[in-house]
Amino acid sequence: MAEKLEGNMLIAQSGGPTMVINQSLVGAVIEARKHPAIKGVFGSLHAIQGVLDGNFVDMRKETPANLEKVAATPSSALGSARKKPSADDCRRIFANLAKNNVRYFFYIGGNDSAEATHIINEEAQKADYAFRCFHIPKTIDNDLKENDHTPGFASAARFVACAVMGDNLDNRALPGVKIDVVMGRNAGFLTAASALARVYPDDGPHLIYLPERTFSFDRFIADVQEVYARHKRCVIAVSEGISDEKGEAIASKFSKEVDSHGNKQLSGTGALGDVLAAEIRARTPITRVRADTFGYLQRSFPGMVSEVDAREARAVGAEAVKLAISGIESGSVAIRRKPGKKYRAYYECVPLRNVARETRHVPDSFMAESGNDVTPAFLDYIRPLVGRLPGIGRLKAAPLGRK
Amino acid sequence: MAEKLEGNMLIAQSGGPTMVINQSLVGAVIEARKHPAIKGVFGSLHAIQGVLDGNFVDMRKETPANLEKVAATPSSALGSARKKPSADDCRRIFANLAKNNVRYFFYIGGNDSAEATHIINEEAQKADYAFRCFHIPKTIDNDLKENDHTPGFASAARFVACAVMGDNLDNRALPGVKIDVVMGRNAGFLTAASALARVYPDDGPHLIYLPERTFSFDRFIADVQEVYARHKRCVIAVSEGISDEKGEAIASKFSKEVDSHGNKQLSGTGALGDVLAAEIRARTPITRVRADTFGYLQRSFPGMVSEVDAREARAVGAEAVKLAISGIESGSVAIRRKPGKKYRAYYECVPLRNVARETRHVPDSFMAESGNDVTPAFLDYIRPLVGRLPGIGRLKAAPLGRK
Repeated sequence: MAEKLEGNMLIAQSGGPTMVINQSLVGAVIEARKHPAIKGVFGSLHAIQGVLDGNFVDMRKETPANLEKVAATPSSALGSARKKPSADDCRRIFANLAKNNVRYFFYIGGNDSAEATHIINEEAQKADYAFRCFHIPKTIDNDLKENDHTPGFASAARFVACAVMGDNLDNRALPGVKIDVVMGRNAGFLTAASALARVYPDDGPHLIYLPERTFSFDRFIADVQEVYARHKRCVIAVSEGISDEKGEAIASKFSKEVDSHGNKQLSGTGALGDVLAAEIRARTPITRVRADTFGYLQRSFPGMVSEVDAREARAVGAEAVKLAISGIESGSVAIRRKPGKKYRAYYECVPLRNVARETRHVPDSFMAESGNDVTPAFLDYIRPLVGRLPGIGRLKAAPLGRK
Repeated sequence: MAEKLEGNMLIAQSGGPTMVINQSLVGAVIEARKHPAIKGVFGSLHAIQGVLDGNFVDMRKETPANLEKVAATPSSALGSARKKPSADDCRRIFANLAKNNVRYFFYIGGNDSAEATHIINEEAQKADYAFRCFHIPKTIDNDLKENDHTPGFASAARFVACAVMGDNLDNRALPGVKIDVVMGRNAGFLTAASALARVYPDDGPHLIYLPERTFSFDRFIADVQEVYARHKRCVIAVSEGISDEKGEAIASKFSKEVDSHGNKQLSGTGALGDVLAAEIRARTPITRVRADTFGYLQRSFPGMVSEVDAREARAVGAEAVKLAISGIESGSVAIRRKPGKKYRAYYECVPLRNVARETRHVPDSFMAESGNDVTPAFLDYIRPLVGRLPGIGRLKAAPLGRK
């Protein structure tokens, strides 16, 4: 057997936090500490920024007990960044990795992070630097290619399902129209997860709008009126990323900030919900119209973790280290699902470029023909990921009639 | 011993739902079913509206198992209403109660509901109608006179504490200014509860604004800049009810709807958060500024119940029935706290008029001199109500210095 590549390891967390991103960090660190070839185990503070600045912490100093506490804590313990590294940044990053004898590099993040990992790996190859370079998947948007689903998604989906479940009960007690705006710029998986909130046949969400379908205000108003006529109330789950026929996000018309990827900031404002509510007030006789934007709560809420999500997030972190130690040079760990009724996942190493940049969308088979709902196939797909939701009761006695 | 008053019982749920209002309903119904003097046990659908319309359900038809399921479900199982009954409504309500031989009337709600209960009771007295008439406390705002705290508050506080705890972790990973808008028109107890989110000394919320103190934009901007200079980030909890020096709610300047009590609707819109965020962007060099409005999630989220809250909400429901059966004619069940280190509550019957209409505010002893924080006395007050919060971990190793 060939000798193992010896040197230091660096791990970083990028992009939006999730409830289980620290599971992946801890999974990788605990696995790394088992292998003598890996010398220093460093964490980079604030993602790529920490690599650029050489701002590291020594992950060997953490006790197993504290690592477990961190693993169970939402949001990125090492800090994150939204910075998209330029080609020049990538050269500086690689130079800093080489200077610190980093031979094992792990980057936890979404498709932008996979792309950065890919570029850094290419720099290492150009320099003929012996290097192991892995992307560890993470995103609540569930939009990574090659993956059945991504770590972070199921816990965020659990939050959204519970939130809409509660909101549906609230709306049933005090009827009106309620709009819930859910995260997801380009992929509607998280908004689709709101369908899990339904327990009884007349439960909301009654309408679900995903960014994969063109949003029309006329159609929206007609849908709301139809539901309201039937149920005397209406709960709506809408993605922050819904777009008009030109592909422009409705929310971006009211947004102030642009991120480093050139995208208008859609989260962290209640504007989209307010615009949709105003439209209903203006164009229908319905008076009680409310909108809530779930915002950052859906990605960082403590105590809402899906067990499957936590387990898999831990596993993909450990898996990346095992692959690197086994001699594979680079890749991304993808989560796949075994066929069959019982849910079982497995992990596969896929080329970095397969996961980089591109977005996976909600497939047609998961979206209803109506354009405002999901299909049973989507529910079959998501149920085992999210796990058992809180039980919901209803009074069963029929009304006594006018007394 | 005098004979018990015989007749039917009617119970209703009013105002904004809470996570434990069904505990009070079920507590009263289970207690009522023990007493032979109480014949029919009816629930009124949609609060006062159901009493006006004679729209009842038979609560004797519910199985104990289903009642337990309902008790554990957030929001008002009987439906609610925001209708404020006029004097004429109260006469009609009383006429309908008498027509249905309702001798035991229980109304679960806030101070407006206590007032309605009081007026209905006065109608019964005028008519010399033998009647037992009780208000059962409920409000996430914690603003009922005579009560140490109110059912519904602790579970909503638990949600707010968890939400800000997660948000603080998110803000620590991706630094910037984060504003969280919390419910509470006139009383800031729920916003104050955000202070429970702090685990480490530099944790947010760094600033807390309650409606009990005049809100000044200049002061706000200065506070944010001071915190940002110290921590390079800032998490802010702000009540939807914050008001200017004229007493006008800041949010009401951007609100469209007026409720039946003549109040401008403050919830169900993200406008206040967006206005505060815009102000920070305009008047400071800080670029990453986000706002979330917790909205209806904080009162109806399943699986977030405080155990103490659930137990007490059940108890006040049962207690009201016991008081009525014991021969007391009317009152409201108030929650009091026994002195001493260990938390213990007890229940007392207080006159309806003592709880009606007026609002209890956050006392000065709970608010810091600075005008932007709570005191340790407030934390001592709230901790036993909310219970143990999810554990939060942090990496402990010190940075390695520039590598």
